[in-house]
Amino acid sequence: MKRIAIDMDEVIADFIPKHLQVFNRDYHENLTVNDLMGTRLRVLRPQFHNEITAYLNDPTFFRDLEVMKDSQEVIKQLSEQFEVFITTAAMEVPSSFTAKYEWLNEHFPFLDDMNFVFCGDKSIINADYLIDDHVKHFQRFRGQGILFTSPHNINETGYVRVNNWLEVREYFLR
Amino acid sequence: MKRIAIDMDEVIADFIPKHLQVFNRDYHENLTVNDLMGTRLRVLRPQFHNEITAYLNDPTFFRDLEVMKDSQEVIKQLSEQFEVFITTAAMEVPSSFTAKYEWLNEHFPFLDDMNFVFCGDKSIINADYLIDDHVKHFQRFRGQGILFTSPHNINETGYVRVNNWLEVREYFLR
Repeated sequence: MKRIAIDMDEVIADFIPKHLQVFNRDYHENLTVNDLMGTRLRVLRPQFHNEITAYLNDPTFFRDLEVMKDSQEVIKQLSEQFEVFITTAAMEVPSSFTAKYEWLNEHFPFLDDMNFVFCGDKSIINADYLIDDHVKHFQRFRGQGILFTSPHNINETGYVRVNNWLEVREYFLR
Repeated sequence: MKRIAIDMDEVIADFIPKHLQVFNRDYHENLTVNDLMGTRLRVLRPQFHNEITAYLNDPTFFRDLEVMKDSQEVIKQLSEQFEVFITTAAMEVPSSFTAKYEWLNEHFPFLDDMNFVFCGDKSIINADYLIDDHVKHFQRFRGQGILFTSPHNINETGYVRVNNWLEVREYFLR
């Protein structure tokens, strides 16, 4: 059985709307996802770099992120034909461990928590496919990287790309 | 550069003395490591199975475990010639995430926390070697399993075995 490893933030967990919402609220701005095309909030507002990254240190930040559209149904389908692992670089935000674990159990109860992986360097992942929004994780990955479109990566080229979960289904279950 | 994955409990973190200490204290017993040869505390005292496993749900339980003798020096040496990852089945005890992360940073500060992996099923680990006290993790591991002696595994045969960290050094740096 082939194995698919799947990232969390910006792949199954909709990180950006929440991040924009708290930033807009605190700094009286009206930034939207469109403002982030090809960039990052911390690059767009470098004067608030520390504050923008500090939001993530709130242990509850990741607990109430929205689920990415169609990800639940498609992953449920995939898990019938593939081994599915969730592989998130949680070591980058250690305060997020519990929130991420609870979030996965709430929204993906059909996955075995023995298939959750909190790591940093994803070259440690032994899988046939890795669906991720960060191209850095593909450099030393031994399987096939699949770039999940996110505003910050729209200008990346040279990777297999999927724009949404229906395209993931099309890729694996065509 | 070859990669070594290393388990935590009973490999670099001395789990058993603490577990015995709290059990002996609460149940007025005087069990020692010798009583656990070839077995487990929960098997030896099945009437307290739930209580014995419940100790681990205390979020601080794993925070003050002793470091296994010689593990720091040997891993420091190994990390000069190998990529070293710490791979622990923390998903089995989700309340332990923070304690395990802090413990690693305290006792192995020379390791990059991007090389820490909290997982469940260790077949997800992409490494050349896995040093672990549980033979179950070797069944689907793609590299070479190395069984680290622990009371519960002394009767396991058919595996490369090391009895302590000096033997680990001998195996890799001979």
